[in-house]
Formats: sequence, structure tokens, C-alpha cells
Amino acid sequence: MKKFRVYVTYKPSVFDPQGDTITDAAKDLGYQTIQAIHVGKFFDIEVDDSEGTAAQTVEELAEKLLVNFNLEVYRYEQLGED
Amino acid sequence: MKKFRVYVTYKPSVFDPQGDTITDAAKDLGYQTIQAIHVGKFFDIEVDDSEGTAAQTVEELAEKLLVNFNLEVYRYEQLGED
Repeated sequence: MKKFRVYVTYKPSVFDPQGDTITDAAKDLGYQTIQAIHVGKFFDIEVDDSEGTAAQTVEELAEKLLVNFNLEVYRYEQLGED
Repeated sequence: MKKFRVYVTYKPSVFDPQGDTITDAAKDLGYQTIQAIHVGKFFDIEVDDSEGTAAQTVEELAEKLLVNFNLEVYRYEQLGED
């Protein structure tokens, strides 16, 4: 079994209201050294690789299920193997 | 300026409905090799380090603002430096 992590973030051109809200909250708490905070999500995927298709499966899943290509971009990495 | 990434995940003991829902959806799409999918979030933080307090600031922010310790655990890493 292989483990992959898919990182999904907003496109740079897309407004990140959550990130901006958290940045403001941090400054309200007195953390003036904070310049910016951006929010993303990730998916840890455990996939059987006996047929050698694990990476392809992860890419297909990202494109069909996990990522909204109008707003988001993604990249993935293999975390490990059991 | 330094960049940090804070990873926030559910505690192992906490039920991850979103992860389970996505796992079921993946199997419905025919991806039977998927064993499990877990969802997490991350925060990319840009912080001025002229006072040498960047890491401490990130930890304090995580504990005060970014993490719900009843349900979640976190770790962070430095991504880079401008």
C-alpha cells in the first residue's frame, strides 16, 4: 500500500477570504509581525499499488473529485509505503 | 521574512466524516484500490522575523487561533525565507 498527500490551494488570482480573515484576527491579537496567512487543504490517500496504478489513481481522483479547477490548483507527493 | 506551514489534522480518535464520504465517492467512481482518504488543512504563514520571534509567533497563533485542541492536532515546518 502506498500513501500520497494531495495539496489543494487557491489559484493566486483567487481571493482567499478565510486567509484574510485569519490574518486580521492574528493582528487583532497583537501579532503585528504577521504579513499574510493563506489557507489550503490536503488529502492523505492510502491506495493499494499491486497493479502499479496508484499514482495514476491519485491524479485521476484529484481531477475528478478533489479539485475545483475554476478556483484551485493542486500538487501531490508520495508520503510513504507500507 | 520567513514562511511556515502549519498542518492541522483530526486526532486519530475523531471521526472524519468528510474523509469517509470522499472515500465512498472514490469507490463509487470505480477506484476500488483506494483504502482510505483523510482530509486536513494547512495554513501558510508569512511572518517578519526581524525580532527572531517568528517560530514562537507561529506556535502561539496555532494554539490561540488555528487549532481546535478538542478535535485536532497540529505540526508545523518552515517552508523558506525571503
